[in-house]
Amino acid sequence: MTSSPLADSHLREECTASETLLRGNFLQVRRDTVRLPDGHSATREYVVHPGAVVVVPLLDDGRVVLERQYRYPVGHVMVEFPAGKLDAGEDPFVCGRRELLEETGYTAREWAHAGAMHLAVAYSTEIIHIYFARGLSLGERQLDHGEFLDVFTAKPAEVAGWCRDGTITDAKSLTCALWLQNVLSGAWALDWQPAPAQGGAG
Amino acid sequence: MTSSPLADSHLREECTASETLLRGNFLQVRRDTVRLPDGHSATREYVVHPGAVVVVPLLDDGRVVLERQYRYPVGHVMVEFPAGKLDAGEDPFVCGRRELLEETGYTAREWAHAGAMHLAVAYSTEIIHIYFARGLSLGERQLDHGEFLDVFTAKPAEVAGWCRDGTITDAKSLTCALWLQNVLSGAWALDWQPAPAQGGAG
Repeated sequence: MTSSPLADSHLREECTASETLLRGNFLQVRRDTVRLPDGHSATREYVVHPGAVVVVPLLDDGRVVLERQYRYPVGHVMVEFPAGKLDAGEDPFVCGRRELLEETGYTAREWAHAGAMHLAVAYSTEIIHIYFARGLSLGERQLDHGEFLDVFTAKPAEVAGWCRDGTITDAKSLTCALWLQNVLSGAWALDWQPAPAQGGAG
Repeated sequence: MTSSPLADSHLREECTASETLLRGNFLQVRRDTVRLPDGHSATREYVVHPGAVVVVPLLDDGRVVLERQYRYPVGHVMVEFPAGKLDAGEDPFVCGRRELLEETGYTAREWAHAGAMHLAVAYSTEIIHIYFARGLSLGERQLDHGEFLDVFTAKPAEVAGWCRDGTITDAKSLTCALWLQNVLSGAWALDWQPAPAQGGAG
């Protein structure tokens, strides 16, 4: 997969104007006018998102930590890996440690950055950073007001089965399952790092 | 993973009011007021999406068909499996055959429905149906006006490598890579069906 920016001039779109369409409580939407590769113009509407983090927490007994959370837009309780949105200016790794603790009560002795995914490339700027956590200790979770979710644990083989049978349909969690499968098989190595000393989480 | 609707009453949110926040050229956004499990209320803002289809096209030589497309919201040329949005009222399978032909020029002798994913569960209704296609014949692609994308082929091992090294970051394509890996290993079986006779695609 080699490609230079020059080679992509037949694909790239250039912004010629930009306006805010919506400033909601949660969603910000912009509409940009773009010059297409053939010189014509078009509009692109998209959600401006601060980015997010998802964590694959590995327990010492080989199980992983998951959540069940009602997702209003899709009208279902979804099985997901723990995740959350970056606060303004927040470092993704700090966010990962914060969300894991807040939502599940777990802190981890070691962390590894796995990769990143773009969630809805046609209409959102959202990037989700993927972390693995191990050496977990359970404390008290600290859910935000208005946040309701169940925490539970499962074997990786159960997770794979749920990805196949439609129990897990959340795209970020399916992507985590791809990482989990390849990390556990030894195909994809992670660069584990000790967690910063407590209190250094910002 | 067993759960009854009753058991989820501590998680579910009920709509008490709904309004349209934005009717864009492309994006529709709603804001609903919901009753939380503890009786308090909150608002949920989300994109109303018609749903989409993604196709994993398997060539007879073992390679797969991919695309490179500039995605304006993320500002990158992305490597993706062929995909597209459902037309109003369109059957997902009809959409899959249409998008594969329009974007890549390929028609397939056999199809299998693999599963589905929800793309952005916090703020979109979008569901993407995942299909596999094989017995491919190459014809003429029929890109929409204003659509610019490159079609190329790769080995599954290359796809896996790109998922790991960050060349592929599109969440729907990462999910397809999970399916591809498990289908090719024999872990997940597909129910292949012959394609309907030509002209029956609606």
